[in-house]
Amino acid sequence: VAALARAYRRGLVRRTRALLDYSDAQGLPRLRAAIASMLAATRGLAASADDVLVTRGSQMALSLAARALVQPGDAVAVETLGYRPAWDAFRVAGAEIVPLALDAEGAQVEALLEISRRHRLRAVYLTPHHQYPTMVTLAPGRRMRLLELARARRFAVVEDDYDHEFHYEGRPVLPLASVDRSGAVIYVGTLSKVLAPGLRLGYVVAPEPVLARMTALRGLTDSQGDLPLESAVAELIEDGELQRHVRRARRIYDQRRHALLAALDRRFGPRLRVRPPAGGVAVWAEAVPPVDVEAWARRALAEGVSFQPGRRFALDGRPRPFLRLGYACLDEAEIEEAVRRLARSRP
Amino acid sequence: VAALARAYRRGLVRRTRALLDYSDAQGLPRLRAAIASMLAATRGLAASADDVLVTRGSQMALSLAARALVQPGDAVAVETLGYRPAWDAFRVAGAEIVPLALDAEGAQVEALLEISRRHRLRAVYLTPHHQYPTMVTLAPGRRMRLLELARARRFAVVEDDYDHEFHYEGRPVLPLASVDRSGAVIYVGTLSKVLAPGLRLGYVVAPEPVLARMTALRGLTDSQGDLPLESAVAELIEDGELQRHVRRARRIYDQRRHALLAALDRRFGPRLRVRPPAGGVAVWAEAVPPVDVEAWARRALAEGVSFQPGRRFALDGRPRPFLRLGYACLDEAEIEEAVRRLARSRP
Repeated sequence: VAALARAYRRGLVRRTRALLDYSDAQGLPRLRAAIASMLAATRGLAASADDVLVTRGSQMALSLAARALVQPGDAVAVETLGYRPAWDAFRVAGAEIVPLALDAEGAQVEALLEISRRHRLRAVYLTPHHQYPTMVTLAPGRRMRLLELARARRFAVVEDDYDHEFHYEGRPVLPLASVDRSGAVIYVGTLSKVLAPGLRLGYVVAPEPVLARMTALRGLTDSQGDLPLESAVAELIEDGELQRHVRRARRIYDQRRHALLAALDRRFGPRLRVRPPAGGVAVWAEAVPPVDVEAWARRALAEGVSFQPGRRFALDGRPRPFLRLGYACLDEAEIEEAVRRLARSRP
Repeated sequence: VAALARAYRRGLVRRTRALLDYSDAQGLPRLRAAIASMLAATRGLAASADDVLVTRGSQMALSLAARALVQPGDAVAVETLGYRPAWDAFRVAGAEIVPLALDAEGAQVEALLEISRRHRLRAVYLTPHHQYPTMVTLAPGRRMRLLELARARRFAVVEDDYDHEFHYEGRPVLPLASVDRSGAVIYVGTLSKVLAPGLRLGYVVAPEPVLARMTALRGLTDSQGDLPLESAVAELIEDGELQRHVRRARRIYDQRRHALLAALDRRFGPRLRVRPPAGGVAVWAEAVPPVDVEAWARRALAEGVSFQPGRRFALDGRPRPFLRLGYACLDEAEIEEAVRRLARSRP
């Protein structure tokens, strides 16, 4: 916070005129360049500043992608468990949402062949790095097959890499966008999870024609970004402050992840089946045998503990015997106490 | 700049958690309350914090209004000279744009009756306070008739009050929204013209069902605003800093307006017909006899002076023998020099 407030003030005072004036809809060139070199260094993504569109968080990026891609009547395939605000952005743009099943290797991409025969499939939206909410990483073979199908059946892949930074086991898997040779992938990332949810900064890397349409739509939706903020964050990236912050956060989140997994195992044992996630800031846990997790969520809330029951993420709106337990903002003692109350409130 | 940077830093440091966390799409309640009381005090608009939606500048407000109102095939009437990015926001939402003629009393609203018979008229978009770009104030009788027609023919009025603060002669005319009894008016304002173009803050006051749809769309387009900025600006409004800034700016702009009018009269006399605008930060001038103002604009640019030729604002894309001369960011000596070069570059 102190570093950000300093950078913000420094920018406002030193470059008052430039940062308070009209600018372009694509984002501050200096921030686009900083993001491009960060993506090259950390994700094997060969993008230049010209290939980057800065947005207000990933939600604006998804909304612009939806509006740039979809004509009414087009279909967009999404994972059967996923991120509702993204689906709604595609729906509002006129898309029919079509389910794509999930298993232990991530989305069953082979099904897209059949889907593309039965629908006017314009895009598939997915979170391949840490599938939201199940945290599964899309298997390598499926990644290749997905890109093959996208090229052959001419649909776009909207890759939402919302928490790339938070990967704990081994190296992060490179995004689909870094191996896409046919210009099918629209890559969406966010700095809001790294900085703070209240600071809306996202970005898109996409093939030129799509990026140009998205930039034009961005201008009509929201003329330009917050230049003092964009400049402050560019400075934090350039001087390495952001990467240091990410490393610190990752270490802390990893400790919390271990603390949560240990506490769950201790309190629940086999009654809660947890696949330890390789990344992210939440655990996806299955109640065994199945219990009414929505009743559980209500009872837990009465104990002061909030979690999201599986149904929240279900495209079909049906209950699932799963809990999503977010742990990013709890320290180890709080995690211990939360799990104790969770156990106490189990139906 | 100093006051803003201080308020921003103060908010970030004192209310770190609240300002960096998730929030709601309607905008920081404290800023909505501050805007509501400012609107009540300065524009006779009886709005509470609940009636206000905070947006990223007026462009987002217009884009959300367009998307909330328009179904493909609907018509939206706009003044024959106007603000292209607004028209494009309606077009992108699927609207057919229909021209509404202008004269010395502003938009010829009576024509809306006939338009509403020949089209599925969903809305009229206009700038009644200082018509953009001609600076004419919509006459009182036409205001009443417009609201009557809106009620009878069931279309919405999107009132873009983009520079309400900058009115020099007499009291500002109250917005249509302040006398609307039938819930037809969607009122759009901006703080970006008061603060700085680089700080995107706009707002909407609208009847509940429309505001709710716009807020939902806002959330899918851009989850929430920039809370540190929203908090800083709320503070500037609460402690009167913003109104003091507006009064200072108004005094300076008024001096510049006089300087520009005097310089134009001295250098051009009757060759440039200028109706002194009651407000705004630009002058709309007619070349008499007509000259090729686009050639003039190119030649002026070679002399280091930029102005917008009439065609830029024309819905039909045809040339007009008019110049829009913005003066906000020039001091009196610069205005004198600019007009000298303008005279030298006249074709």
